[in-house]
Amino acid sequence: MASRDVEGRMETDETSNLISASKVQGTTVYNADGDDIGSIYDVMLEKVGGKVSYAVMSIGGFLGMGADYHPIPWNRLNYDTNLGGYVLKEPVERLKAAPTMSRNFATDPDWEQQNAGWTRRVDEYYGMPI
Amino acid sequence: MASRDVEGRMETDETSNLISASKVQGTTVYNADGDDIGSIYDVMLEKVGGKVSYAVMSIGGFLGMGADYHPIPWNRLNYDTNLGGYVLKEPVERLKAAPTMSRNFATDPDWEQQNAGWTRRVDEYYGMPI
Repeated sequence: MASRDVEGRMETDETSNLISASKVQGTTVYNADGDDIGSIYDVMLEKVGGKVSYAVMSIGGFLGMGADYHPIPWNRLNYDTNLGGYVLKEPVERLKAAPTMSRNFATDPDWEQQNAGWTRRVDEYYGMPI
Repeated sequence: MASRDVEGRMETDETSNLISASKVQGTTVYNADGDDIGSIYDVMLEKVGGKVSYAVMSIGGFLGMGADYHPIPWNRLNYDTNLGGYVLKEPVERLKAAPTMSRNFATDPDWEQQNAGWTRRVDEYYGMPI
């Protein structure tokens, strides 16, 4: 594009492709109609490969209490630069029966053992290749 | 492997390949000798592709004050399951002259504009393809 001959501008574009994890945490999630349906609570990363595998979306609740935490395969979310948030590529009704996580999944050392196989259940639910 | 015929075990292995961003934040970074040289302050993600591009490593300081924040290309870090942390694939001395970030980079709305081109500077410094 012509505007790309301004070096500074091109570099700004490049930088704006990135977002810090701390900023993703809390980003609003919208449905296809652009309604606010929840927010990103955390993201699950591959320790080795460094890919974002799942977003953990929090829905409902009040001041962080009583919310549901749904792990969503990352590719079921689209970042929408106009909305400044993620759009869920699933009808929100589908989340009602979807796998949930406890709020303390990230810090409870026993959580993984107690929830072995959650990635498989999530992938199956959303029709991801397993 | 033979141990993989136990389904639960295989699934536990799979799950332990993942780590939440909130747990990565604060994970210790070691040098090649296994010495604690700092910690992960944040991770920079591609908004669209969902790849971890950079870790922001904090070095030095006391109770969060006076630390340096170095963006490091993610592939310059190795996750070491025995250490339970990341090993920097660079001599720590190299960080002295390396690009730094301000602590508020993630929340300051003007930071990107003021720091256009930082990804290029970081990639050049660490010899990444640009």
